[in-house]
Amino acid sequence: MADPQPLEPLVRMDIVKVTAEGPRMETDVVATEVPVTIMVDGLEIATLMGTPEHLDDLARGFLFTSGLMQRSGDFLGCEVDEAHWVVYARLGHKVEPSQLFRRTFTSGCGKGVMFSSPLELAGRSPLSAGFAIAGVRVQELANWFRRHSDLHHATGGVHTVALSVDGADPELIRDDVGRHNAADKVVGRALAMGVDLERTLLVTSGRISSEIVHKTRRAGIPVLVSLGAPTHQAVLLAHDLNLTLIGFARQNRFSIFAAPERIT
Amino acid sequence: MADPQPLEPLVRMDIVKVTAEGPRMETDVVATEVPVTIMVDGLEIATLMGTPEHLDDLARGFLFTSGLMQRSGDFLGCEVDEAHWVVYARLGHKVEPSQLFRRTFTSGCGKGVMFSSPLELAGRSPLSAGFAIAGVRVQELANWFRRHSDLHHATGGVHTVALSVDGADPELIRDDVGRHNAADKVVGRALAMGVDLERTLLVTSGRISSEIVHKTRRAGIPVLVSLGAPTHQAVLLAHDLNLTLIGFARQNRFSIFAAPERIT
Repeated sequence: MADPQPLEPLVRMDIVKVTAEGPRMETDVVATEVPVTIMVDGLEIATLMGTPEHLDDLARGFLFTSGLMQRSGDFLGCEVDEAHWVVYARLGHKVEPSQLFRRTFTSGCGKGVMFSSPLELAGRSPLSAGFAIAGVRVQELANWFRRHSDLHHATGGVHTVALSVDGADPELIRDDVGRHNAADKVVGRALAMGVDLERTLLVTSGRISSEIVHKTRRAGIPVLVSLGAPTHQAVLLAHDLNLTLIGFARQNRFSIFAAPERIT
Repeated sequence: MADPQPLEPLVRMDIVKVTAEGPRMETDVVATEVPVTIMVDGLEIATLMGTPEHLDDLARGFLFTSGLMQRSGDFLGCEVDEAHWVVYARLGHKVEPSQLFRRTFTSGCGKGVMFSSPLELAGRSPLSAGFAIAGVRVQELANWFRRHSDLHHATGGVHTVALSVDGADPELIRDDVGRHNAADKVVGRALAMGVDLERTLLVTSGRISSEIVHKTRRAGIPVLVSLGAPTHQAVLLAHDLNLTLIGFARQNRFSIFAAPERIT
């Protein structure tokens, strides 16, 4: 690419717009997308195509939701090289190259990669069974979410993920060209802030694939809400993991695909 | 997962639907998603989460657009194990494991993985410069596409990709939970049919990331049309590759982000 890479999440570009009146020159806004590399101890963990902001959150969240670290305290810190989009992260333990070898490319946007086996999940503490949320709050969250996903509206090219604590309007919201990146950025920031993830809902603009269910479960988040549709595999997995899965969330309705008992 | 895996692209499931009248039990249709593994000579090339149909087309198209085979004749055939979603493909040449080592996870849906370097593209023949299409046909294609993406409408959970030859209404259309899979299935089928890809348009329901531009270019397709938005990186890459990139295609308008000279 000839241009120097921009670091703004949105860029103006010259386009030709064609309408019933014929073609005309215009400028339009598009989302930025760069390759972001996450390194641990000289080992290249993954290169993700993503939006070049909040890269520290992305690394922390990715390492957590992909199973390469088990708790917030395992993340000792990181340096972000913003000129080359490389995050050098320090963990409290070694990552074995063999952990990186078997990678499944998933249908989801964003990194689309899972490292650990489902067995690893079994070792995790169970999802909070006592946590519950009123159905009307789910509808209000969907409504809030639609009003606040600004970058999504501006470009049509990014996904938005937000985290609600106890059903309150989210204070944590992230956009990214990859919807898994947006989820990792939210989880990474929540970890850094010490949020009790067992009392939260993850709200996403994107479709729900099995990988986003995996990520949500690994983060210990009991309720996953999407404005879009889940896949069949995502529903089966949510059933197995006892994760509450809600799709097609709107101001006046939603559909519960798994674990409805958390919705009152 | 406890259930036996279904092989239908759509599955009915019990859900709880919550509306202003309160919750009620319903059934809804969701898209199937399974891990599909592509093997060549005992080497695992990739495992992609996808819709379990047209797996031979998927393998052929994936190997082509990811740069692991250069022409249709390199694909000697394949066996599809539909019980385990494994495709055993035979190529006319060896794939070196080192070709698989550096993989970039992209923001796109579907496999989200690129194997070869941009240098490999330079060795390809240039995109057809003489190919052109009337703007009104682009609008008609967008309209046709909206009417025909049935699985997308039924579930909201899949992406649709179609191939138009010389601007005619597409005879080749594929759905998949991964939009890159849908593109690979279309390209793979077109290769098998001997379609002259230099005279085609690829039409997709999904957002356009740089990887789908790469795939389109590798297939030799000169025009890429999306009903959605492109990312900035996708636009820069399309400029560099001289690929015509159209976004926000509707019945009465569209936006040309790169190489407008092919639209008359």
